[in-house]
Amino acid sequence: MTIYEIKVYLEQFFEEVELVGNGDNIIDGPAKIEDAGKGNVSFVANDKYARFIGSTNASLLIVGKKTPTPKYSDRLSFLKVKDPYTAFVFVLQRFAGPRVIAEPGIDPAAIIGQNVTLGKNVAVGAYAVIGDNCVIGDNTVIGPHAVLMAGVVAGRDCLLYPGVVCYDGAILGDRVTIHSGTVVGADGFGFAPQPDGSYVKIPQMGIVKIEDDVEIGANNTIDRATMGSTVIEKGVKIDNLVQIAHNCRIGENTVIASQAGISGSVKIGKSCMIGGQAGFAGHISLADKTQVAAKAGISKSTSESGQTLRGVPARPIREQLRQEAMLRNLESMKKKLDALEAEVRKISGQ
Amino acid sequence: MTIYEIKVYLEQFFEEVELVGNGDNIIDGPAKIEDAGKGNVSFVANDKYARFIGSTNASLLIVGKKTPTPKYSDRLSFLKVKDPYTAFVFVLQRFAGPRVIAEPGIDPAAIIGQNVTLGKNVAVGAYAVIGDNCVIGDNTVIGPHAVLMAGVVAGRDCLLYPGVVCYDGAILGDRVTIHSGTVVGADGFGFAPQPDGSYVKIPQMGIVKIEDDVEIGANNTIDRATMGSTVIEKGVKIDNLVQIAHNCRIGENTVIASQAGISGSVKIGKSCMIGGQAGFAGHISLADKTQVAAKAGISKSTSESGQTLRGVPARPIREQLRQEAMLRNLESMKKKLDALEAEVRKISGQ
Amino acid sequence: MTIYEIKVYLEQFFEEVELVGNGDNIIDGPAKIEDAGKGNVSFVANDKYARFIGSTNASLLIVGKKTPTPKYSDRLSFLKVKDPYTAFVFVLQRFAGPRVIAEPGIDPAAIIGQNVTLGKNVAVGAYAVIGDNCVIGDNTVIGPHAVLMAGVVAGRDCLLYPGVVCYDGAILGDRVTIHSGTVVGADGFGFAPQPDGSYVKIPQMGIVKIEDDVEIGANNTIDRATMGSTVIEKGVKIDNLVQIAHNCRIGENTVIASQAGISGSVKIGKSCMIGGQAGFAGHISLADKTQVAAKAGISKSTSESGQTLRGVPARPIREQLRQEAMLRNLESMKKKLDALEAEVRKISGQ
Repeated sequence: MTIYEIKVYLEQFFEEVELVGNGDNIIDGPAKIEDAGKGNVSFVANDKYARFIGSTNASLLIVGKKTPTPKYSDRLSFLKVKDPYTAFVFVLQRFAGPRVIAEPGIDPAAIIGQNVTLGKNVAVGAYAVIGDNCVIGDNTVIGPHAVLMAGVVAGRDCLLYPGVVCYDGAILGDRVTIHSGTVVGADGFGFAPQPDGSYVKIPQMGIVKIEDDVEIGANNTIDRATMGSTVIEKGVKIDNLVQIAHNCRIGENTVIASQAGISGSVKIGKSCMIGGQAGFAGHISLADKTQVAAKAGISKSTSESGQTLRGVPARPIREQLRQEAMLRNLESMKKKLDALEAEVRKISGQ
Repeated sequence: MTIYEIKVYLEQFFEEVELVGNGDNIIDGPAKIEDAGKGNVSFVANDKYARFIGSTNASLLIVGKKTPTPKYSDRLSFLKVKDPYTAFVFVLQRFAGPRVIAEPGIDPAAIIGQNVTLGKNVAVGAYAVIGDNCVIGDNTVIGPHAVLMAGVVAGRDCLLYPGVVCYDGAILGDRVTIHSGTVVGADGFGFAPQPDGSYVKIPQMGIVKIEDDVEIGANNTIDRATMGSTVIEKGVKIDNLVQIAHNCRIGENTVIASQAGISGSVKIGKSCMIGGQAGFAGHISLADKTQVAAKAGISKSTSESGQTLRGVPARPIREQLRQEAMLRNLESMKKKLDALEAEVRKISGQ
Repeated sequence: MTIYEIKVYLEQFFEEVELVGNGDNIIDGPAKIEDAGKGNVSFVANDKYARFIGSTNASLLIVGKKTPTPKYSDRLSFLKVKDPYTAFVFVLQRFAGPRVIAEPGIDPAAIIGQNVTLGKNVAVGAYAVIGDNCVIGDNTVIGPHAVLMAGVVAGRDCLLYPGVVCYDGAILGDRVTIHSGTVVGADGFGFAPQPDGSYVKIPQMGIVKIEDDVEIGANNTIDRATMGSTVIEKGVKIDNLVQIAHNCRIGENTVIASQAGISGSVKIGKSCMIGGQAGFAGHISLADKTQVAAKAGISKSTSESGQTLRGVPARPIREQLRQEAMLRNLESMKKKLDALEAEVRKISGQ
């Protein structure tokens, strides 16, 4: 692929793509700027990496419009765009090519239940099991060993990686990606305590609903609602090993990092960012655009959007950082107090 | 199902069920009180929800014996019982109907090893693998893709959801439910450090023993003992993504919330409640009826039953809450100290 | 097996093995010293357990060279070695015998892709799926239901337990063990934010590389690199439910306890010990031989090797323990401050 072809490709996404250098040079793959060699394309999206421009062996760098580019040499060319990071992501997509999860068509070793509706170009991998009454949209890929229990509905262009399990009645929108080992729709954790100390199981009769353009990582658990739906709204991205309990609603375009735990009936707003290992008490609401630091423990609802919360229990980050700083000074505070006490004793004794 | 039929059904579980309203009205399903419509049954178990009684569109509410019920109208009837929450749970069970995990009988695409004993009415799903010398009790359902390695023993009326893995020698009691992705009996984490920095694996020769009426959620890991057994006692309920290390014993009717981590050789007492993301140091014992707050770090054994522990390292909740309150006041303490220092300097200077 | 045979077996690993007692007595299995009975071998590696020597019913104890052994009786013999713990581990291995994960050969219900290279004595279990262009080394065992996507390379003597998933291109060294439910090579969590709040997926084009002698527990997630490799170096041991994000490098002989979370691009040094539920911020480096306490939150790089870190954010353990002690005394500090204030007021008032 020539640099000129990459320029034309990027012009689909950006109004202006300026070429500095030789458009005929061949690019055969992307690389990190510090590792790149001849034929590689890389990028500079922030000033921290600008220092590599002089020394990189890449043949092409995608940079910002204002990034100073050295005098033209045939060895290194530049494409200047408004958002070089996103431009590089599109270049990665161009070079990535599709990963084969399952060959098109139904593998002879897959089992398809009764009354299943399959769209066009559906791929179902070896040993996948699709239960009765499932509906699978066009171009959707069900990986080997995936299990859809009865009545699961998946939209178009979904990717279910090997070993995903969807319990009965789960609803997936279009372009939903779920990685291996994730369990969608297992029973919520609900038991009614009895006088003798034992528990009676509360039937979990609801479902999980996952909207369009959601990507869910590996080994997550997203429980079905007791009644109604656990909802993952449009555009949500979830990392690995995350717990989403029954009756939660995760707002549009929210991202959740690995090992976070969202307790039952929590409502998270839109465009939030939840850090790794963060936890939520049950039944609380988080306002839109909230950022939750890693390891934070959210214990009460918030209504102000755009806050950053940190600590256990979590508080606005400035308060929390001030408290952490004071904690580090606790020892000097103690010394000052002891010195003062001695001084006062001396005065009193006089 | 008529209201009268629900009354008769509940009389199996409660001595007294009082009907206020029209027993002939038809109920076709449960709903949350705020979402309920005509034909729905819902409940009021605590005063917080009593405010909905006037406005709900439900046709039937299950309420406490002392809950004031408005004057009779044909639109809304009441069943009054001692424990309306548990009564509603039983009604949910009545409406839930059984979920089909695997059809009765052995799926032709399941693999059954040598010398396997299967009880009456066992169901084994597609692509399940049951190893040599396993014993499966009456009515037990082994979901599609479940793997039982050699010598696993499961009792009656167990439910293993798709993709559960039980390593060799695991013993399950009666009425044990295990959700998808849970791994029972993988090797405990034991390695002997060597002088050159490498490790020699300590063979994990023990097993996992799960007693009657245990329910285990999705994607948990319960490791086999080094020698002897890791034991999950009768009636324990475990949420998702929980780690139970080798040689643990979890006491009867204890419940463990999501992402908690129980280190090796920990003994947890009976009827404890372990919060989400809580962690335990190895080799400690927790007294009966202990409540552990979410995210707590239990670092030493306790012997007094009924305590609530919180914090890292965890302490009795009152102490911990007092400390958290003082922490929030650290800034005013610092100001007071500085003011006092200035005052003392002034006095000394006199 | 006679005690004399155990002595000869241990002489493979230790220069000197001294027998005190009757070498002809028969040993039929290992046990914990407090549970041991006739025919059992157990061990004493630290003084805490020496008190059991007088009362144990074991027939053989493996002890240190300096451990005082009581006068000879035919009931109890001793083998004295330099490292009794490791010696006992070798004895455990001797008694454990091999666990059958899959019978030798290719199960007729396994699916092998095109252009796959299988070494000698490879075992592939029922319903395993091996993608195109995979290479599997001699004696490697691929358990039932394991899925290797295209182009996975595994070395000699590997053990993949039932249900392991390796995404395309993963590279495993020799003697790598991976337990059930672990997902190797799922996409790293990378998305480029767009002005409208949505995200564009960053293709994850790299791989995972696992070096020799690594053991990985159950239900872990080890993500592939964005570009290049996520690397687990030689001899690393990982417990259960651990997250290792894209582009991490875990140094030789490091051990990671359950539920720890390693964020993207973190480099952990050699011979580190990472406690349970510990978390790491992205893009940091940890020096060799660092010990990280359970639940710690590592927020910045370290360069000094051999430190122990604790707390959130983590600090050297002495500082952190001193701070925790001061925290417990905060209440008395407050009282002293209030008393001092009253005293100073009295003085000022004079």
